[in-house]
Amino acid sequence: MKLLRVGPPGQERPAVLDGDGRPRDLRGLLGPGADLDGAFLAGGGTARVREALHRDELPLLRPDETGAARIGAPIARPGKIVCIGLNYRDHAAETGAALPAEPIVFMKASNTVVGPDDEVLVPRGSVKTDWEVELAVVIGATARYLDTDEDALACVAGYAVSNDVSEREFQLERGGQWDKGKSCETFNPLGPWLVTADEVPDPQNLGLRLSVNGTVRQYGTTKDMIFPVAEIVRYLSRFMVLDPGDVVNTGTPAGVALGTGGPYLREGDVMELEIEGLGAQRQIVGQA
Amino acid sequence: MKLLRVGPPGQERPAVLDGDGRPRDLRGLLGPGADLDGAFLAGGGTARVREALHRDELPLLRPDETGAARIGAPIARPGKIVCIGLNYRDHAAETGAALPAEPIVFMKASNTVVGPDDEVLVPRGSVKTDWEVELAVVIGATARYLDTDEDALACVAGYAVSNDVSEREFQLERGGQWDKGKSCETFNPLGPWLVTADEVPDPQNLGLRLSVNGTVRQYGTTKDMIFPVAEIVRYLSRFMVLDPGDVVNTGTPAGVALGTGGPYLREGDVMELEIEGLGAQRQIVGQA
Repeated sequence: MKLLRVGPPGQERPAVLDGDGRPRDLRGLLGPGADLDGAFLAGGGTARVREALHRDELPLLRPDETGAARIGAPIARPGKIVCIGLNYRDHAAETGAALPAEPIVFMKASNTVVGPDDEVLVPRGSVKTDWEVELAVVIGATARYLDTDEDALACVAGYAVSNDVSEREFQLERGGQWDKGKSCETFNPLGPWLVTADEVPDPQNLGLRLSVNGTVRQYGTTKDMIFPVAEIVRYLSRFMVLDPGDVVNTGTPAGVALGTGGPYLREGDVMELEIEGLGAQRQIVGQA
Repeated sequence: MKLLRVGPPGQERPAVLDGDGRPRDLRGLLGPGADLDGAFLAGGGTARVREALHRDELPLLRPDETGAARIGAPIARPGKIVCIGLNYRDHAAETGAALPAEPIVFMKASNTVVGPDDEVLVPRGSVKTDWEVELAVVIGATARYLDTDEDALACVAGYAVSNDVSEREFQLERGGQWDKGKSCETFNPLGPWLVTADEVPDPQNLGLRLSVNGTVRQYGTTKDMIFPVAEIVRYLSRFMVLDPGDVVNTGTPAGVALGTGGPYLREGDVMELEIEGLGAQRQIVGQA
């Protein structure tokens, strides 16, 4: 299934795409105030939606109800966003870094999340705002001290396209820890959909692509991940508890401005991202 | 005022201490389901509580309603926890680090927050679990690109005692970014109270103390911060949006196990923390 949230910022309505790709309203099924979030995922929400969709019980979302059909991020309020650094062989090479012996972990403020086609803002004072197309993993069940890859994949609700926007000067030249360049407002477009794990039979065989102003900058495959999804989730569960609704950005392939010498993003630039089977994003760059 | 949350984990009730130090129930005033969180702070909740307390309209919380009077963290579900590293001159010196030229910023998963007297768990495989008494700043209004220290302090709802528990091997010897050693479960005891900013006339003149098994390990003052609270909030607002309910841990003075050669924490150890005017914590260490 493809779960999504449709409507103006802060007023998105939960929905699911039907067999014809039309959004079906989930408010009636889930109740007033319910949303696509950790409680939904932890409480068997996905199974309820699947059943209601199968029985054709869900009304269409009418265009006039959907704020000109803006799509928001498919998860409301992630509890946290955990990111894996240098997780593609070619990206590690382009940045001059050694291949990591174990996953590099950093975090991103969860109020950076915006919709897949929302504006991305270059921070004030920034000259090195960069792109990173990434496979996002959405957690569906509590992950704590997991032993096996099977246990890890059982904690994955699904996948989404993520743009882990990064300010390289803030990240690398302003005091030592990466988080400072990862958490600026609008720095995590997510979506358009949360694609449930059953529709992604092999997360290690997905093509990723990102272009800027029509020129392809990143063109990779999740086959090239150093640490695959199952290993990432299992590994993280030894260092923190992952909760339903948490998001893990699993790293980016080669082709970012940091690796290729720029140019970095400027107001008016257009980023287009796509991951095989997970949909596409398009962001126009603005200035904060 | 001293705001707090009383009751079993996950079922805490919002309360405020009256002039005699007794907890008064805020459920009637705030409505069902309301809690001490970002929405409360953003929506003028503090002023409403102050007025109701002044009018003596708030009922006492009876002991049998309060789960043996366990106190939870004074903020439910912080949106994020931002931490400042090496922010005391003596702590930077003890760890062999140069004084930072600008604040070092890292993050801590917000599901690490527990009550001030809850158990702290040594993670599996850990041999270097360490303590850090810190002044926590609780954000009360959105902080974005602030210009002045006055604007920054106007975004502060209040202060609390925080223990920024840290696993030093995970933090420093496992791949380069500190977050990996900061986000283990139970790693952020917070409270007992959110002390509103009006009761803390000078956040740069507070004594901090931490002992382990009765031996004082940290004994400092916020006078020794390299970057004071106002500067931290103003600085952070250039790199991320701070939301109401967010928590900023402002760094720790000298005396951590990393700086003094240990011993690190083990099951059965007892940590006791106190900050002048903000109350005390006591945690027994367990094993995950």
